[in-house]
Amino acid sequence: MNEKSVGIVETKYFTFAEPPNEMLLESGEKLGPVTLAYETYGKINSSADNAVLITHALSGDAHVAGCHSKNDRKTGWWDFMVGPGRPFDTDKYFVICSNVIGGCKGSTGPTSVNPQTGKPYNLNFPVVTIGDMVKAQKELMGHLSVKKLLTVVGGSMGGMQVLEWAIKYPDMVATAMPIATTSRLNAQGIAFDEVGRQAIYADSNWKGGDYSDYKLIPAQGLSVARMLAHITYLSEESMHEKFGRRLREKERYGYDFTTDFEVESYLRYQGESFIKRFDANTYLYITKAMDYFDLTRDFGTLENAFKGVSAKFMVLSFSSDWLFPTAHSKEIVRALTVNRKKVTFCEIPSPYGHDAFLLRNEYMEKMVTDFLTYAYDK
Amino acid sequence: MNEKSVGIVETKYFTFAEPPNEMLLESGEKLGPVTLAYETYGKINSSADNAVLITHALSGDAHVAGCHSKNDRKTGWWDFMVGPGRPFDTDKYFVICSNVIGGCKGSTGPTSVNPQTGKPYNLNFPVVTIGDMVKAQKELMGHLSVKKLLTVVGGSMGGMQVLEWAIKYPDMVATAMPIATTSRLNAQGIAFDEVGRQAIYADSNWKGGDYSDYKLIPAQGLSVARMLAHITYLSEESMHEKFGRRLREKERYGYDFTTDFEVESYLRYQGESFIKRFDANTYLYITKAMDYFDLTRDFGTLENAFKGVSAKFMVLSFSSDWLFPTAHSKEIVRALTVNRKKVTFCEIPSPYGHDAFLLRNEYMEKMVTDFLTYAYDK
Repeated sequence: MNEKSVGIVETKYFTFAEPPNEMLLESGEKLGPVTLAYETYGKINSSADNAVLITHALSGDAHVAGCHSKNDRKTGWWDFMVGPGRPFDTDKYFVICSNVIGGCKGSTGPTSVNPQTGKPYNLNFPVVTIGDMVKAQKELMGHLSVKKLLTVVGGSMGGMQVLEWAIKYPDMVATAMPIATTSRLNAQGIAFDEVGRQAIYADSNWKGGDYSDYKLIPAQGLSVARMLAHITYLSEESMHEKFGRRLREKERYGYDFTTDFEVESYLRYQGESFIKRFDANTYLYITKAMDYFDLTRDFGTLENAFKGVSAKFMVLSFSSDWLFPTAHSKEIVRALTVNRKKVTFCEIPSPYGHDAFLLRNEYMEKMVTDFLTYAYDK
Repeated sequence: MNEKSVGIVETKYFTFAEPPNEMLLESGEKLGPVTLAYETYGKINSSADNAVLITHALSGDAHVAGCHSKNDRKTGWWDFMVGPGRPFDTDKYFVICSNVIGGCKGSTGPTSVNPQTGKPYNLNFPVVTIGDMVKAQKELMGHLSVKKLLTVVGGSMGGMQVLEWAIKYPDMVATAMPIATTSRLNAQGIAFDEVGRQAIYADSNWKGGDYSDYKLIPAQGLSVARMLAHITYLSEESMHEKFGRRLREKERYGYDFTTDFEVESYLRYQGESFIKRFDANTYLYITKAMDYFDLTRDFGTLENAFKGVSAKFMVLSFSSDWLFPTAHSKEIVRALTVNRKKVTFCEIPSPYGHDAFLLRNEYMEKMVTDFLTYAYDK
């Protein structure tokens, strides 16, 4: 393990909203009890002003950094960002990440057992929103005695949570770093999500969401959804660089429907590995939460949405991201600026598309480090 | 019916390659007999120099213009381009279009009966290429006594056929108009095609391609493939203009998995209407033919590919087409220019993405009219 790693870490669980004090969701439905899976690294300091909340994207989880055991060869999903001497320096900061509600990585979601029936919720799980995810995280902050967050930071759907935090709980958020995100998906984004959902519905193993009753998995539908989404996470340029039209272990076209091109093989692999680590109903719920997120709808205008925020912002986008393009980040920057809020913005040059925020990038690492250091040492 | 319409038209059929004289395909397989469904409008002139061949895209057919009966309310797929006084003026030109081999609109394809078994070919149909499609069209030209084409014109996969015609049969092609096309799909294009195919394979009704044996249709898989493809045919801008985040017949989110957004409803409609007019196995074959098309692979370089062409070219692209972007058209123009071939090029401003070539556009209509008039009257 790298000397800058946080080392061996453990996922913990926090349960709240026990009946009859269920959590009220934005839909009007109630949910309880609610468990959040979370991890923390570093220690809270005596003045309790060094807490960093990292929020995750669609398929992410609480396991941001380090390993779960000595033999665990896979580090957390943002390991290079978190650890001693890393941008989220665990010698300085108390870093927290929780799996979202509606998720399938330890938090209460559609795969959880509904206490009223003794069976998994499946599609009886209420539709949750980004607001609900953040509301649950706030409960976790209470549990951890965190009254103020030095920063909330996340990419993609994580960035939506960052915006929600800064707007809903302005007193609790000193700085905010929405990365590769948007204040609302455009029609194309909703369309891609919907096709992914339709691919899951189309799988005969899905059984109206009750596949677990039949000990089945709608693997092919989920795999198609993931393959499609994966194309949108990459840039055309990076796919071209990585695969071009190279054939897979053959000199000549197969003239059949097995794999001809490397890019086909890669996508199939992405689909197949995803079904081992993610749940199909959860995919429906999380994409729906993203589709519903719309600050303009909630506040009339994006300017209004940011009226009450007190956080200083750093907004980052990536040049080749066509799913959450720079124009969307600029809208956020503009709305903040209209409200005379403090905001730093950078479009980071990268050929890697939307997924760039998950990859090492010296600009991102330096900007995060400096912004946070300035906020903390001010 | 509009006075410029070609009126009531009829699909005709031409059969060739009767065993033992089967057609030799690029794969090395043989196919026969081969039937092509085709339509013609206008008349060949005495000097036989007024024939125009229109080649169609993925889901197109031979029915380019006019109606099939008095009560037929649906005109052919490029009706506004073909008719008296229209760009392909049927008072001047003899216009021909045939459904490609491998298709499901009357030409021999996977839904046709295999004479050796008395059952539909299904996946026993040989994989055909753009080159095979064009080779079959050449047989049709012989049948129609057309020795030289005033122009070959088509968009998308039709444009691939245009390039193939100009390269393979240079003596037969006076001018060529590849529209919104490419000399080879990039990795992203292959990836989208592959996800569409995977969606079809994933449908339990597909039965390894033998769904017709079971009187089934892999409707959901084909529908997902079409929905996905449809997103790539539109521009982000046009989707935004057309749908934005408008809700479908509701004021408030449904907080369920029925339709929330207009764009979802539109896509589902696109998927559902497609399954009524197209065949799933055919979708596999036609996308494969597009993936395989690669002039660089065939000739070493794109410059080499165009060395022997004698046609004058007009290359058209559309500004908001991200599936077959202008850069791909420019590569073709550059390779032609290097060979000192005559080529006109225009990136037509349009917000409608790849599908723009199927929509009325005054620039396209004017450029096609003028280019063709000049070529004919020269």
